[in-house]
Amino acid sequence: MPHQLTSNSYGKSRVRMTKVIRNGSRHDLLEFAVEVSLEGAFDASYETGDNSAVVATDSIKNTVYVLAKEHDFTEPEAFAIILARHFVDTYDQVTDATVSIEQSNWTRIDDHDHAFTNGGSDTRTCTVVLSGDDETGGDPIVMGGVAGLLVLKTTASEFHTFVDDRYRTLADAHDRIFATTVDATWRIADHHVEFGTTYENAKRALLKVFAGHHSLAVQQTLLQMGRDVLDACPAIEEIGLEMPNQHRIPMNLDPFGLTNDNEIFMATDEPYGLITGTVTRGD
Amino acid sequence: MPHQLTSNSYGKSRVRMTKVIRNGSRHDLLEFAVEVSLEGAFDASYETGDNSAVVATDSIKNTVYVLAKEHDFTEPEAFAIILARHFVDTYDQVTDATVSIEQSNWTRIDDHDHAFTNGGSDTRTCTVVLSGDDETGGDPIVMGGVAGLLVLKTTASEFHTFVDDRYRTLADAHDRIFATTVDATWRIADHHVEFGTTYENAKRALLKVFAGHHSLAVQQTLLQMGRDVLDACPAIEEIGLEMPNQHRIPMNLDPFGLTNDNEIFMATDEPYGLITGTVTRGD
Amino acid sequence: MPHQLTSNSYGKSRVRMTKVIRNGSRHDLLEFAVEVSLEGAFDASYETGDNSAVVATDSIKNTVYVLAKEHDFTEPEAFAIILARHFVDTYDQVTDATVSIEQSNWTRIDDHDHAFTNGGSDTRTCTVVLSGDDETGGDPIVMGGVAGLLVLKTTASEFHTFVDDRYRTLADAHDRIFATTVDATWRIADHHVEFGTTYENAKRALLKVFAGHHSLAVQQTLLQMGRDVLDACPAIEEIGLEMPNQHRIPMNLDPFGLTNDNEIFMATDEPYGLITGTVTRGD
Amino acid sequence: MPHQLTSNSYGKSRVRMTKVIRNGSRHDLLEFAVEVSLEGAFDASYETGDNSAVVATDSIKNTVYVLAKEHDFTEPEAFAIILARHFVDTYDQVTDATVSIEQSNWTRIDDHDHAFTNGGSDTRTCTVVLSGDDETGGDPIVMGGVAGLLVLKTTASEFHTFVDDRYRTLADAHDRIFATTVDATWRIADHHVEFGTTYENAKRALLKVFAGHHSLAVQQTLLQMGRDVLDACPAIEEIGLEMPNQHRIPMNLDPFGLTNDNEIFMATDEPYGLITGTVTRGD
Repeated sequence: MPHQLTSNSYGKSRVRMTKVIRNGSRHDLLEFAVEVSLEGAFDASYETGDNSAVVATDSIKNTVYVLAKEHDFTEPEAFAIILARHFVDTYDQVTDATVSIEQSNWTRIDDHDHAFTNGGSDTRTCTVVLSGDDETGGDPIVMGGVAGLLVLKTTASEFHTFVDDRYRTLADAHDRIFATTVDATWRIADHHVEFGTTYENAKRALLKVFAGHHSLAVQQTLLQMGRDVLDACPAIEEIGLEMPNQHRIPMNLDPFGLTNDNEIFMATDEPYGLITGTVTRGD
Repeated sequence: MPHQLTSNSYGKSRVRMTKVIRNGSRHDLLEFAVEVSLEGAFDASYETGDNSAVVATDSIKNTVYVLAKEHDFTEPEAFAIILARHFVDTYDQVTDATVSIEQSNWTRIDDHDHAFTNGGSDTRTCTVVLSGDDETGGDPIVMGGVAGLLVLKTTASEFHTFVDDRYRTLADAHDRIFATTVDATWRIADHHVEFGTTYENAKRALLKVFAGHHSLAVQQTLLQMGRDVLDACPAIEEIGLEMPNQHRIPMNLDPFGLTNDNEIFMATDEPYGLITGTVTRGD
Repeated sequence: MPHQLTSNSYGKSRVRMTKVIRNGSRHDLLEFAVEVSLEGAFDASYETGDNSAVVATDSIKNTVYVLAKEHDFTEPEAFAIILARHFVDTYDQVTDATVSIEQSNWTRIDDHDHAFTNGGSDTRTCTVVLSGDDETGGDPIVMGGVAGLLVLKTTASEFHTFVDDRYRTLADAHDRIFATTVDATWRIADHHVEFGTTYENAKRALLKVFAGHHSLAVQQTLLQMGRDVLDACPAIEEIGLEMPNQHRIPMNLDPFGLTNDNEIFMATDEPYGLITGTVTRGD
Repeated sequence: MPHQLTSNSYGKSRVRMTKVIRNGSRHDLLEFAVEVSLEGAFDASYETGDNSAVVATDSIKNTVYVLAKEHDFTEPEAFAIILARHFVDTYDQVTDATVSIEQSNWTRIDDHDHAFTNGGSDTRTCTVVLSGDDETGGDPIVMGGVAGLLVLKTTASEFHTFVDDRYRTLADAHDRIFATTVDATWRIADHHVEFGTTYENAKRALLKVFAGHHSLAVQQTLLQMGRDVLDACPAIEEIGLEMPNQHRIPMNLDPFGLTNDNEIFMATDEPYGLITGTVTRGD
């Protein structure tokens, strides 16, 4: 028996679509980087180079722009559902479509009608998976999220009383800087909710807990952030969080005859701690 | 019931370890970026900030350097197994350890004894997963791989006779440039094989098929590359391949009164096709 | 005559210093990436490897942290002057010191006392040059700036009636998207001004002109931005601006039977226009 | 007097042009990222938005592809001269044209006729400046170069006996790792030389000195590298070198009861030393 193709997918990544919605002189701006991935009856292309079932990735790209024109939407989740449904419904050979979108972070300059500036390092994300078969009954799985949300607090963070063995050199810390870049992804139970409200409430809850929680461990803060997002957003069933610990290391000033009163730090990118957790609604 | 922590892991990323092995005046150079991720009985840290079971990520970092000193190894897979086994064996609370390594690509300058230069965009990768429980009986799962392997061929690539519908504007191509960055990951059946030989043979097979295969689709070349790696490397059970189609678009020179005889192209990074497949040994 | 060393400099880059200033429970956060470059009597190190005059770049790094501890400052320009003066005054062999700082963009989360998030893509920059010799009489040259200031407007931008020859294929545009990333650097006449006020006023003027100016060319908007910064900031003598034209290309929807009413665009990173200009106070 | 536009330029960056030269079945591959910058009588565009003298940056982009088709060349310097001369000769309003090219590093797979892979981190660079006025008499200034040339040696590098004062904590090193990324730019006296031979000889000299030189300081190695390039390449008048010191820091293993015999290191990206120098032919 020859070696077998046991799974495959193909699609187009980084289709960068800008849409301007003009309400009179007030303009809304949407900038999406779209990724479409298709699964289905594409084995002939792999086995023999017979592409008769293949929708070219260039056509996939065109489809993103065409459907952006033909449909009204303001939320990335809504557009991702439109795209996924299109591919599953239009092509018999497509059994599963996965559409991921990253939305650029634009904010109005002084509430200007048509001028925008970057609103922060974080981007809004979503992923929609739609299967054409019976399993999901035609209902999409919808994931929302936020990526690259940089946060730092200068106090109210401790880390101590951890395993003390041969490999430990780190001292107990009772007051340290806590800096991280939050990546959160949440599963939305009902794809008829207002995605924008859910996104805004989830992001607000993440920031509020980070700022207000007295942290004994990144792990503890992570769990509290997940729980408060679930409290704030009834539509969210589950949330996954990744929080790298981006260390600010107190500079040793002793060699220079100075005392560092928790004031001067070295910021480092590498190595970094990586803390993750998934929190599921408990009702 | 409160919202539940349903999965979690933590560890250290980008621990950059350099080891010089001195055989007289002939030096070998290993540069690894190591990631360690642990799973186990760490809920107390998430729930209450009780860190008594937590091995600090700083201690994990220290462990990488200590074990690099204490053990002899020349292959990243071997060092990843040493690390994974250390964490599972040393700490009762650790049930699973995952260690990933990316090895920098250094090659000797004119076969010099101790001077090196970069050997190409590709890096060698591996991931080892070790579970402390019965399921795997203490045997690690070992994945080898290569990432970022840039390749381009100027002919012997076609793509045509694909779906022709409303969304298609791309013409049939009977002679096009094929450029991609191969990411390959393979599962090694027996963790006692010579990992270095497997790596070299797999990379050589990837390059040879890419160069020699007359391609009717990226998909077709991908499958052939996977099959030839399995033929060349008996230790490999399964290989996953990701091959973005990095387009070189023929420049339309008609407006300038010129004919482009498949000679002048625009190189683009975005958007790009993304073709993937997994090939499993068929014996 | 042997080949001559005709110029040289050395120093340390990317010294990432974090300082927390505690006013009771209200904390200020400064994060700087510092670069120090020294010129002077260092030829012996180049010629013979005699390092007796060389301040190690590691010592330069230490100095950044030590002086951050020993001095009070809130503005990057002020700290850069402190550093430059230290190197010129402390070491006879140093004739010129150049200190550049990039300040990370942190903003308070809901005006929180000690929790911050990223405030946008732009960073604050400065460069200070101090010569120990007579030429500048010991007065530093101080440059302030902003880098990476992303802005986009959806209308009030035209570009037409440009050179029409064989190489032109671009149509006249009477209503286009204008997107750019502003890099501005300004020379401050008097190094006793309040650098923070100058920075805030300059950035505000840049954003205000970009939003409000009806643009007939990126060039025209650039000049107006420079002039308004000079009007708003008496301390600024001269401003240099770099404004890449980050194209949003209208998608041709004709092949799909649709009309693109200036609504759907492809966002591209490459290639990009690059427009620059320097504006000098005319009093 | 209003604030004055005292200098300006505009052009197009990152025009990525791929050219395939077919000698029967043997193909040569050129991939260039081109930047064109023009200076001249463009004030009207800045002052009033009158673009009648402006060659659109989109037309500049087209010109790169058109001239790539119409001319034979194999070296980036030759193509940069063709482009610069075109802009100065074709447009009266252009007084100065600067063209920079970065050539991607492709190398044949096993000497294959039409298949290539990446040959290393380094890229070949050049910059050509051509003035239309009397000063240069129509002769271009031609700079060649190499960027991103990663090199590392595991011994034959010392650094000691440097300034010992309050700010020093670094110990003398008599045997250390020396790692850097060489950026070199050289001025070519005669623009009729074989640019390719000059490039190959210069790169070879850089690598040879780096590998063979017993280094007492990065500075010393830098100067020797510059001198040997001038010896090896009669066409080069002057060479500028930038060599960041990419530190490999010996890991302190004392806390773990181990001795680090110059064997285990931490690789760091930040901060880094930055050493520069310019070497001029001394005949």
